[in-house]
Amino acid sequence: MLENKERTELSALGEFGLIEHLTKNIEIKNSSTLKGVGDDAAVLEYKEMATLVSTDMLVEGVHFDLSYMPLRHLGYKAVTVNLSDICAMNAMPKQITVSLAISSRFPVEAIEELYEGIIGACNNYQVDLVGGDTTSSLSGLIISITAIGEAKKENIAYRNGAKEKDLICVSGDLGGAYMGLQLLEREKSVFKENPNLQPDLEGNDYILERQLKPEARIDIPIILEKLGVKPTSMIDISDGLASELFHICNQSGVGCELYEDKIPLDPMTYDRARDFGLDPTVCALSGGEDYELLFTVPLSDHEKISNNPDITIIGHTTHKDSGLNLITKNGVSTPLKAQGWNSFAKK
Amino acid sequence: MLENKERTELSALGEFGLIEHLTKNIEIKNSSTLKGVGDDAAVLEYKEMATLVSTDMLVEGVHFDLSYMPLRHLGYKAVTVNLSDICAMNAMPKQITVSLAISSRFPVEAIEELYEGIIGACNNYQVDLVGGDTTSSLSGLIISITAIGEAKKENIAYRNGAKEKDLICVSGDLGGAYMGLQLLEREKSVFKENPNLQPDLEGNDYILERQLKPEARIDIPIILEKLGVKPTSMIDISDGLASELFHICNQSGVGCELYEDKIPLDPMTYDRARDFGLDPTVCALSGGEDYELLFTVPLSDHEKISNNPDITIIGHTTHKDSGLNLITKNGVSTPLKAQGWNSFAKK
Repeated sequence: MLENKERTELSALGEFGLIEHLTKNIEIKNSSTLKGVGDDAAVLEYKEMATLVSTDMLVEGVHFDLSYMPLRHLGYKAVTVNLSDICAMNAMPKQITVSLAISSRFPVEAIEELYEGIIGACNNYQVDLVGGDTTSSLSGLIISITAIGEAKKENIAYRNGAKEKDLICVSGDLGGAYMGLQLLEREKSVFKENPNLQPDLEGNDYILERQLKPEARIDIPIILEKLGVKPTSMIDISDGLASELFHICNQSGVGCELYEDKIPLDPMTYDRARDFGLDPTVCALSGGEDYELLFTVPLSDHEKISNNPDITIIGHTTHKDSGLNLITKNGVSTPLKAQGWNSFAKK
Repeated sequence: MLENKERTELSALGEFGLIEHLTKNIEIKNSSTLKGVGDDAAVLEYKEMATLVSTDMLVEGVHFDLSYMPLRHLGYKAVTVNLSDICAMNAMPKQITVSLAISSRFPVEAIEELYEGIIGACNNYQVDLVGGDTTSSLSGLIISITAIGEAKKENIAYRNGAKEKDLICVSGDLGGAYMGLQLLEREKSVFKENPNLQPDLEGNDYILERQLKPEARIDIPIILEKLGVKPTSMIDISDGLASELFHICNQSGVGCELYEDKIPLDPMTYDRARDFGLDPTVCALSGGEDYELLFTVPLSDHEKISNNPDITIIGHTTHKDSGLNLITKNGVSTPLKAQGWNSFAKK
């Protein structure tokens, strides 16, 4: 995607030059950011708020494939996945630091594109980029982001707070990011076999965007506060609904009943799954990267939550001894299987 | 260094298993750490203190060479260099997050060694490991650490606060880490030519330790507070004294006179530099990785600071127009050159 552009070698700018070049136009958006980029450390002030910290690393060839992931989207997504972790505590992200290891095959222009995505996400989510590190790598691109956020201590939702008979809720819809990935992988292999064929991605914008430019559900903590609902537990869906539900149930010491017919699916996700011969429910349960929020609320909040268009009630927690179960569309109860993604798995 | 040990593949544990395995014995040491490892984000509470955040990435083959850097030392050093950035704000480090990208050539036992060093440093500096990410890499080992710390807002020392006629001070002694590296590189090339020769490192413990197991000067902010001295500016010496002095003078808008005969050198650094045919002063000015603190204090604090064994006054700031100058042992003033390390430089 950079074939026709100028190419400036990273070595021409050097580390300090590159950082200055990339960060010179950054403006501070949050009053909690006292000092951003440009010193040994950033300085933040949270006063009576608790500080939340989360970190994620994205490795080329493991987490992303630059043959179909534009660098601008990659930068945006790298920020999103980190902010999502802060949202998953029912908190608001406020700052990020960005560390990059870059192989010399990338010119300065490529890193500029990546940074455009990073800064685009910061602008969209009103988050300050306050620091980082930029270095060379022997091969490939590695992005490590740390997100920092704030919440009132009493509002923070941990993974271990779900109680028996809580409602299980999810934001948005599921499985779309996974179907977007299937589509991109298919077009990549078609292209490999016949480079003259144009990729056939038309009419699939929604699921492609779910994969290439996911959004962090920064709106959900705000909606919940407005509704006067305090989630008892919360997690974001990066590895698939089933895997995240296992985390919540195991850490909270509860079981669950999940209703297959309640799992929110976009019609496009459903149709493409069928086209690919996949079970749409399995895509939602095991396909990751939706970055929706999964949370539990007390049964007494049913009325407050049940008519919200952004939130779907998909089941309820049970006694630990009942285990984790999926109630199928036919009304049959079957044990839930978690098949989260393992980057160390032998391919 | 792992030849005779058991080898457990990373894939056998998986990401969640590995993180749990590595972090299960971690105990929280600081009251500001409300929640450490195990959720979407760590939760910290700094109350009336400002929060400081710094991040650094270490890449195999760029920042470290496992042929002479034991993994335990590498883990320790990776923490040290990050804590040093917090100390360089005249602040105290309190928490870290650790992200690792690991190639499959490393067994679980290697990562355990690395973590022993990381946790050893956390114990030594009384810092909590509160989160992180562990993933696979296609080649090599990448360590990204974020350090978080605290300080009273009025005590924070930025790079841009030096005033004209301030004293320039440095902790410890300089150039040792660079000479340790020279020694290790020499023995590595000897070993490459004749693998039967044992490395000749005897009697060089101090400079080897300066390179392999540097310490963060967490004691200096405490000493300064006890002395009642508020540094006007501060930075840690990771790229060499000259380069760091440039940062302080440029950002503060001052010049400086640095006295060659005041630069603190350990006798071993001096002797080995001579053995290698190097100018010891150049080693201190341009050799990095000492992780000592460079700072300025008002001239009026001269008495408070002048007899401290951990601190040496090496010069003073001047009007900007005088530039940055080194006063040589012969009393000649010569412009200072900064030759900081650039990881992007063509080798």
